[in-house]
Amino acid sequence: MVFGYELDGESPEDVSRQEALYRPLAAAMRELVDAGIRSTVDPAEIERAAAEIEQITARLRKSEIPGPFGARVRADGSVRQWGNAVVGLRNAAAPGLVIERESNGRVSSRFTLGAAYEGPPMLVHGGVSALILDQLLGEACSAGGRPGMTGTLTLRYRRGTPLGELRGEAWIERTEGVKTVARGHIVGPEGVTVEAEGVFILPRWVRDGAAAPDSPAADPRPSSFE
Amino acid sequence: MVFGYELDGESPEDVSRQEALYRPLAAAMRELVDAGIRSTVDPAEIERAAAEIEQITARLRKSEIPGPFGARVRADGSVRQWGNAVVGLRNAAAPGLVIERESNGRVSSRFTLGAAYEGPPMLVHGGVSALILDQLLGEACSAGGRPGMTGTLTLRYRRGTPLGELRGEAWIERTEGVKTVARGHIVGPEGVTVEAEGVFILPRWVRDGAAAPDSPAADPRPSSFE
Repeated sequence: MVFGYELDGESPEDVSRQEALYRPLAAAMRELVDAGIRSTVDPAEIERAAAEIEQITARLRKSEIPGPFGARVRADGSVRQWGNAVVGLRNAAAPGLVIERESNGRVSSRFTLGAAYEGPPMLVHGGVSALILDQLLGEACSAGGRPGMTGTLTLRYRRGTPLGELRGEAWIERTEGVKTVARGHIVGPEGVTVEAEGVFILPRWVRDGAAAPDSPAADPRPSSFE
Repeated sequence: MVFGYELDGESPEDVSRQEALYRPLAAAMRELVDAGIRSTVDPAEIERAAAEIEQITARLRKSEIPGPFGARVRADGSVRQWGNAVVGLRNAAAPGLVIERESNGRVSSRFTLGAAYEGPPMLVHGGVSALILDQLLGEACSAGGRPGMTGTLTLRYRRGTPLGELRGEAWIERTEGVKTVARGHIVGPEGVTVEAEGVFILPRWVRDGAAAPDSPAADPRPSSFE
């Protein structure tokens, strides 16, 4: 296993237990971040909140992994990336999308974006749409058995994307050797707001590995690179 | 003032006081989010943290604005967007870039991305690079007196962008009527990692307004649309 992909040492039961533990923590933090943008309480109350948050952080930091969460690869090739900036279960800065995958390389997600994802007033930041579409397109490639890392990504902004409930879709458009071309869009109440096309490339170390595979059971190959 | 741009009702002194109040709050929350991804403390401690965070949120929510922060336009046309997903002073989900502007439409920023911005293991999420570059290119247009909203954005990923200390730059490449073409890149320890080109378009309501201006003092025109 190379390039930061580690074998997942946790049993499925442990992973389930951790999910049940960390999902509410991330949800609580997401609400806190939203309140931090919108609160108009007294200055003394803001200062008290900051001091208490620092205490909680200090307690959480008494034991922690040395760096980012990374990617834990399971025996079936699926990858657990709980720090991922879009879907990471433990990442309260991430919008926390839940993405539905179909085996033909089509993915979709319904999600809600609040005050933390604003660009122009009341609208989703254009770069947040790009962030979400990069993830959706990458997962479409993975879902279709064509995992890759983003080579190019092109966004077309058709209209403003309003904050609130949204839908995203992506699919594999075509394949060209080690390249996979994926497309997708975000849909708001008035229709498609942003369209994306991306070229995803199978990393060389996976291609090389595929030519001389190690034992797949001992060293599973990641089936996605988002 | 239309489309969610509101006059900034706060005096410069009040804005300074609020900056000094909210910047430490956002910094504390950013550390908390990082700890939420990386902590390995006991389950009971995680549950206690979640419960305490919920209490802080409830106190902050006792008084809050009804929706996202929006954009407050000052008399000089500058825009205060403290909820912005990249630069928002009060937004702990944002990486919190401080962007240096030059009047010729060149901007730059040194910033650090931690565990909350991960995509592939140890690397910046490709969509986070897109998010940051969208903001940098948009600010380059504004800095050069050519504000606009993103029409298209194209990213080329040259190599993985490592988490850690990074630099971003953007500039106006050329102008074509209401369109401004901006370019930029992110630079890591080994050179340029991601290149971006974007077309930014002056919104119609600004163009129409410019043809029949109201009193600029009573109703300043925003000089940026990020």
